[in-house]
Amino acid sequence: MDNFWSKYPSIQYELNQVKDIMKKNVRCIDKFMEDIFIEMIDSGGKLLRPAFVILGGHFGKYNKKDIHNIAAATEMLHMATLIHDDIVDNALLRRGKQTIQSGYGKKYAVYMGDFLLSKSLVVLTEISEVKNLSFTSKSISRICLGEMEQFLSQKNQNVTIKQYLRRISAKTAELFSISLYMSALHSKCNKKICRNLWHIGHNIGMAFQIIDDILDFCGDEVAIRKSAGNDLREGIYTLPIIYALKDGNSDLSSLLSKNDLCDEDIRSIVSMVNYASGVEKTKKLAQWYTDKAFQLIQKLPDNEYKNILNDITKTLLIREY
Amino acid sequence: MDNFWSKYPSIQYELNQVKDIMKKNVRCIDKFMEDIFIEMIDSGGKLLRPAFVILGGHFGKYNKKDIHNIAAATEMLHMATLIHDDIVDNALLRRGKQTIQSGYGKKYAVYMGDFLLSKSLVVLTEISEVKNLSFTSKSISRICLGEMEQFLSQKNQNVTIKQYLRRISAKTAELFSISLYMSALHSKCNKKICRNLWHIGHNIGMAFQIIDDILDFCGDEVAIRKSAGNDLREGIYTLPIIYALKDGNSDLSSLLSKNDLCDEDIRSIVSMVNYASGVEKTKKLAQWYTDKAFQLIQKLPDNEYKNILNDITKTLLIREY
Repeated sequence: MDNFWSKYPSIQYELNQVKDIMKKNVRCIDKFMEDIFIEMIDSGGKLLRPAFVILGGHFGKYNKKDIHNIAAATEMLHMATLIHDDIVDNALLRRGKQTIQSGYGKKYAVYMGDFLLSKSLVVLTEISEVKNLSFTSKSISRICLGEMEQFLSQKNQNVTIKQYLRRISAKTAELFSISLYMSALHSKCNKKICRNLWHIGHNIGMAFQIIDDILDFCGDEVAIRKSAGNDLREGIYTLPIIYALKDGNSDLSSLLSKNDLCDEDIRSIVSMVNYASGVEKTKKLAQWYTDKAFQLIQKLPDNEYKNILNDITKTLLIREY
Repeated sequence: MDNFWSKYPSIQYELNQVKDIMKKNVRCIDKFMEDIFIEMIDSGGKLLRPAFVILGGHFGKYNKKDIHNIAAATEMLHMATLIHDDIVDNALLRRGKQTIQSGYGKKYAVYMGDFLLSKSLVVLTEISEVKNLSFTSKSISRICLGEMEQFLSQKNQNVTIKQYLRRISAKTAELFSISLYMSALHSKCNKKICRNLWHIGHNIGMAFQIIDDILDFCGDEVAIRKSAGNDLREGIYTLPIIYALKDGNSDLSSLLSKNDLCDEDIRSIVSMVNYASGVEKTKKLAQWYTDKAFQLIQKLPDNEYKNILNDITKTLLIREY
C-alpha cells in the first residue's frame, strides 16, 4: 500500500492503525501461523476494502475505534477469501509471493482461512451491532455462492453474460459495496447516502473485476503480478470469451474443448476473441460501470473524502490496457 | 438420529423442527449444492450438538423459536467443520457415506464449508444477541486452532499429553460446551447453571473424543463406520501412542518414523502400545472425564431434561471397547 495511499497521508495513517488492529487480532498460540499472517498483512496489498470502510465512515458521525474495527474485519475477511481462493485456483503466486496453499499445503490453508474468517467476526462482535454482523454473514455466503458458481461453470461454454455478472457481483463487488455501506450505516448517515455508497461500491467492484479479467486474459505478468491466461487454463470463461462465444465461432469452441491448453493454444484463443471484438466489448462494459461509479460519486455530499474516493476510483479504473 | 432419540419423543420432535430450519437455510441458487446439504442433513448423524442446545435451553425460560435457531446454527457450524476436516484428513467416508471432498472435489468442499459457516452465522444474527455471536465466533477460531495444532503436530513424537488435551478440547469439547452454554444463557439461566452446563459439555466432549480416538486406534470399522488406524496412518498421534512413547520405547519410536505404515506395522504398533498399557491408561482418563461429567450433571436442578442429559451421556460414554 506504500505507494497507493501516499498522496493521502490521513488515510495512510488510519490504514496503518487498522493494520495494527489486524496484527493484534491474529496473535495466537500458533506462532508459525501468526508469522504468516503478519507477513501477509505487511506484504503490500492496496488495502482497498478497509480504505473504503474509512471513507464511507467519514460521511457521517465518525467513531474512529469502531470504524477501524470494521475496516480490520473487512480486510481479514478478504484475506480469508484469498487464502481459500488460492486453494481452489491452485494458485502459486499472490501479490508476487508464494501462496499459503503452495507454501504450506492445502490442508493448512483450509484452517488458516477459517481462522481468519472467524477472527474477522470476533472483531466485528466487539463493536456490538448485530446489523453489521448480519450483513457481513450474508455477504460471506453470497461470496461463497459466487465462487461456487464459478467453479461449477468451469469449461461451460454456455455460460451467459448475466451469469458472469452475477458471479463477479458476488465474488468481488459484494465486499466493495459492504465496505462503503457498513461504515456509513455505523456512522449514522441517512439512508440515501448509505444506499448510494452501496451502489458506488458495486459499480467500482464490477468494473474492477472486469478489468482484472481483461488483464488476465490478455496477459500482463508485470502489472498484475500473476501468470497470464490463468483463468483460461483453469477453464474459467470470463467476459471476452463469453462475448466471442456468443458469435457462434466453432473453431474457438472446439479449441476451448481441448484438455491442457498450451501457450500456442492460448495465443490462438486470444486472437480469435480479439477478432470477434470480445475484448473491445468487454472494455465497453467496464467503461459503463466506471461511468456509473463516477456519476454516483458526484451525488455524494461535498467533502475531502468524496474527492479522495473520486481520485482513487480514477487510479483503479482508468488504466491503459 | 432415528434410533438415538427414539426414547425421547419430545426431543426427537424438536430436532425434526431444527432440521427443517437447517433445510430452509441451505436453500440457494446452487441446486446441486442444496441437494448435497439436504442429503447431509437427512443422513442420520446423532444431532448431539443441537440436542444439547435444546436441553440447555430447557433449564431456563424456553423461547422455542430462538433456541431452535441456535440449535440449527450449531449443527450447521458442525457440518461446516466436518466438510473442512474431511479435506484435511483426506477422508473418503463419513457416517458410512462418501465425503464431499472425495465425491465432489476438495475445491468445492472448501466453499461448501465456508458457505455453511457463514449461513450458520446468518441464522444466529436472526435472534439478535451479539453475545451469542461473539461466543460462536471465538469458538470457531478456537476450533480452527485445535485443528491446526493437530496438523502441525503430525508425526511429532514429542507431543505431550497436555498438548493432546488442549487440541481435543478445542476441536471437539468446545462445540459441546458452547451448545449447552449458549442456549442456557439465552434462556436466562443463572450464572451457576450456565457455567455448570459449560463444564458438563467440556467433560462429555473430552471423554467422547478420547473414546473416539481409542476406537480409531484399536479399530472397529463397524461401530465407528470409518477405517481403523486412520489417525496413525495420517501421522496423528493420539493418547494411547503418547502414553506409550512416554515410556521411551525405541522400537515403537522407530516404527512410527517409517513412511507409509502397512497393516502389519499398524498391528505391531497396536501391540507395543498395549504392552505399554497405552490403551489402558487412555481408558482411565476417559473414565475420569466421564465421572466428572456425571458429577456435574447431578448438580443441575431436577427436571426431565437433567434425566435425559444423564441418560444420553451414559449411552455416549459408557461403551464396550
